[in-house]
Amino acid sequence: MLMEHSTSAVNWQPTNHAKAPGQTIRDALAHVARGADAIAWFQWRQSRAGSEKFHSAVVPHAGPDSARFREVEQLGRIAGRLGELVGSRVEARVAILHDYQAIWASEGPCLPSSELDALEAARTIHRLLHDRGVTADVVHPSADLSAYGVVVVPQLYLVTDEHADAVSAAADAGAQVLVTYFSGISDEHDHVRLGGYPGAFRDLLGVRVEEFFPLGPGETVALTDGTGGWWSEDVQVTDATVVESYAAGPLAGRPAVTRRDVGTGSAWYVSTLPDDDRLGRLLDTLLTAAAVEPTVADLPVGVEATRRSSTDGSWLFLLNHTHTAQTVAASGHDLVADIPAEGSVELAPGAVAVIRET
Amino acid sequence: MLMEHSTSAVNWQPTNHAKAPGQTIRDALAHVARGADAIAWFQWRQSRAGSEKFHSAVVPHAGPDSARFREVEQLGRIAGRLGELVGSRVEARVAILHDYQAIWASEGPCLPSSELDALEAARTIHRLLHDRGVTADVVHPSADLSAYGVVVVPQLYLVTDEHADAVSAAADAGAQVLVTYFSGISDEHDHVRLGGYPGAFRDLLGVRVEEFFPLGPGETVALTDGTGGWWSEDVQVTDATVVESYAAGPLAGRPAVTRRDVGTGSAWYVSTLPDDDRLGRLLDTLLTAAAVEPTVADLPVGVEATRRSSTDGSWLFLLNHTHTAQTVAASGHDLVADIPAEGSVELAPGAVAVIRET
Amino acid sequence: MLMEHSTSAVNWQPTNHAKAPGQTIRDALAHVARGADAIAWFQWRQSRAGSEKFHSAVVPHAGPDSARFREVEQLGRIAGRLGELVGSRVEARVAILHDYQAIWASEGPCLPSSELDALEAARTIHRLLHDRGVTADVVHPSADLSAYGVVVVPQLYLVTDEHADAVSAAADAGAQVLVTYFSGISDEHDHVRLGGYPGAFRDLLGVRVEEFFPLGPGETVALTDGTGGWWSEDVQVTDATVVESYAAGPLAGRPAVTRRDVGTGSAWYVSTLPDDDRLGRLLDTLLTAAAVEPTVADLPVGVEATRRSSTDGSWLFLLNHTHTAQTVAASGHDLVADIPAEGSVELAPGAVAVIRET
Repeated sequence: MLMEHSTSAVNWQPTNHAKAPGQTIRDALAHVARGADAIAWFQWRQSRAGSEKFHSAVVPHAGPDSARFREVEQLGRIAGRLGELVGSRVEARVAILHDYQAIWASEGPCLPSSELDALEAARTIHRLLHDRGVTADVVHPSADLSAYGVVVVPQLYLVTDEHADAVSAAADAGAQVLVTYFSGISDEHDHVRLGGYPGAFRDLLGVRVEEFFPLGPGETVALTDGTGGWWSEDVQVTDATVVESYAAGPLAGRPAVTRRDVGTGSAWYVSTLPDDDRLGRLLDTLLTAAAVEPTVADLPVGVEATRRSSTDGSWLFLLNHTHTAQTVAASGHDLVADIPAEGSVELAPGAVAVIRET
Repeated sequence: MLMEHSTSAVNWQPTNHAKAPGQTIRDALAHVARGADAIAWFQWRQSRAGSEKFHSAVVPHAGPDSARFREVEQLGRIAGRLGELVGSRVEARVAILHDYQAIWASEGPCLPSSELDALEAARTIHRLLHDRGVTADVVHPSADLSAYGVVVVPQLYLVTDEHADAVSAAADAGAQVLVTYFSGISDEHDHVRLGGYPGAFRDLLGVRVEEFFPLGPGETVALTDGTGGWWSEDVQVTDATVVESYAAGPLAGRPAVTRRDVGTGSAWYVSTLPDDDRLGRLLDTLLTAAAVEPTVADLPVGVEATRRSSTDGSWLFLLNHTHTAQTVAASGHDLVADIPAEGSVELAPGAVAVIRET
Repeated sequence: MLMEHSTSAVNWQPTNHAKAPGQTIRDALAHVARGADAIAWFQWRQSRAGSEKFHSAVVPHAGPDSARFREVEQLGRIAGRLGELVGSRVEARVAILHDYQAIWASEGPCLPSSELDALEAARTIHRLLHDRGVTADVVHPSADLSAYGVVVVPQLYLVTDEHADAVSAAADAGAQVLVTYFSGISDEHDHVRLGGYPGAFRDLLGVRVEEFFPLGPGETVALTDGTGGWWSEDVQVTDATVVESYAAGPLAGRPAVTRRDVGTGSAWYVSTLPDDDRLGRLLDTLLTAAAVEPTVADLPVGVEATRRSSTDGSWLFLLNHTHTAQTVAASGHDLVADIPAEGSVELAPGAVAVIRET
């Protein structure tokens, strides 16, 4: 159940733009596409006073005689046809670990870099997967990792022994594990793990780091293939294969990206944040190794595809985030337009289809 | 009575420059030109200690043997000839409404745009009028508006029913009223007026707005004639003529500037801040419609002209803000130089004349 | 005794870079070169927890099996050969006055310029002297100035009568004294000295200033030779020779740099901060007049040279801050490499030599 989202503009951004016509419906269904069985709004009537009076609402200041209210009414009619989805789940084969304790600990003062953004690597990898039509779960390190073919550990600065062991076990059991810089540094009390970074993942990755070389704002470092940003460090390989090296600066010639085969899986380490092209190709390698496929083949750029499934069947969500019409291969019944989909679905600009698949 | 002003540098700017030679006199007389019967200084002797020790004074740290002190002495001699002005008034035919309650309320947190500057529209319009040699009064919304040909309502976010009615009455009685975006939104308790923006002026202007589309820092939007900045919004015309429309972006084709003829006057609405050229031409239209003339015809660029008048006569102030000599048509007696003005006045760079007009 | 310094990265910069290999030794010996008889580290073991856990240490998180620890061990072996230096002193012939009271007072609020950096002139002059191979002492205004050929008074905003008198006495006794803008303004209670700036040094310098014209961020002003930054002011010469004038802006034609011969020395005033080239040539003039020589003639760019001496002899420190090998003329025994120096010393990139001179 999504506790709250907005029909249009919020009130806490520097500039709060109204949503485009149709975007209220698309944004709402995007949450259903990711697993919500209920979506609630903040706020019913737009408040006349107080700090949230310029946050959008189901009934805006202008009243029910408004385009925004009519769009919510239309969404209500669509929602009336989506009841059969309740209880179905999105099943992803990629997990991205996410832990607020680790984020808070790695954004405090007096760290190697005040510029480091704990979510940067996570968001970048999520975006690159999204561009590839691959759905990823964002899960806590305590989650059951057994069903995932790819496990991403993005700047998980602080981690318990138990959670670090679970990551290692996932690799051992066949997963492609990707760990980024500044992970596994501390335990749950923010006590640094001694003996060389990245303490909790040193054995899994087969690398040992003595010192960090964080990059300044906007600074990049050349790699043998591509460039790295945000961070670099002096990686020693103890039991791993060098995939990519630094090609310039104080670390020229030292390892930048490594791989260690472990059990039936592999543990990859990126000691910098490679540029999108290079990191995307690295992800392609991992996805292929783990036999992870996109939700829909040949998905047009800008169309988002997600599948919910249950013992009763499966439902394909197609969201057209572009300003042009798009065509996607699918068969079944479109619950939004309430029409059959026979081999392909035509999506108007900004439109959404929810196909009960045959 | 001007409570305080400075002989030279202040102490609270990032960089505090001393005034140019002669500027002390010109700045002081600029206040008299705008209606002051008395002008006082902060401070007499420049303090040796404390947070204002680097604020300029009549007697600077250097002592009375200083150019600044001698310039104040010279001003004293001029002031001795200006006593006949006391009680005369500047009579403007343009009013710009100004209310600190509205400014404070529209600069708080959680508004549609944190970039919005409550004084931006007011300052811009005042400057454009100044460039045209037109004197404007800056008055509280409770002021008597009956004598004004043009009434400007710049971002008057918060307004009482009584003051909004007075603006409407001014239009009805023949004034050209110009209301800008984000005006009339709230009542005096900062409770938003419901039913569509700009609540208090919706009927006067004949427009209704459901949602705002504020522009980001430095962002502009194309209009059918010129460009707009700071703000835009989805204007529906209920009883007005479209003067100008948005030409790009999410509001392309929607009204940007409107006019509603009311009684013997007109109510204009600008839902964005047009560029100087476009807004200047709009002001020209209003000034012409209201038969408002500049203080002096053919005034050179950079010369400021203001007139004070009383039952005893009138006095024309001419301030040369340029670095070159300027000539202005005027006849009477120049109280500054204490010489007759016979048809024209020659103003040295930076000089001031106060002509008792014949 | 240097209370603490770091083996590698600190933890309080925006981006904390590790030191390059060899830099730990060079940085440590740089302190010895400047007179330290003991150098201590913060911290012994890198802490596991707390706000300084990412500050480098003798024993890093990685443990004693680390390049950094081995470099400290190597430094220990070098230090074992440097005991004979204890008690020797660096003898400089240039003094730069430095007083935290003056700095704090001139960085408060409500000053003529909020951009003024109290250390800017001091750092600039120190750097230009360093580039010339000239060693400068940084001393409190209460220091004995009798041994110095050049005394620099950089933005000494606040000064006691006693210390101002000592500066005048130094000039009288033969020193070349260089005073910069915004010096001598206040007494020790931050009470401004009246009668014209720079109060405490007005008679010494033979100038009188009525008003300041500070420059804005990045602003420069043309001089008759070069440009000035940060500050300008309206200088009247009462008993001095004009060396350089302002060539543009509101002060065009007024004095910018002056000299007054006093006793057997001279007192120079710079009312702005000339660009490096112009200020460097001015310093050359002062150094020549005071017969101050660099530590070593023909020193390569990027090599630092300092001499410690005592009744037992003298030791020449040569620090190669460049990435290429450098050769410097010297004879004696190199205590770092523990080899004789016969006429010249070859310094590897980043290397240090400490020559017991014959």
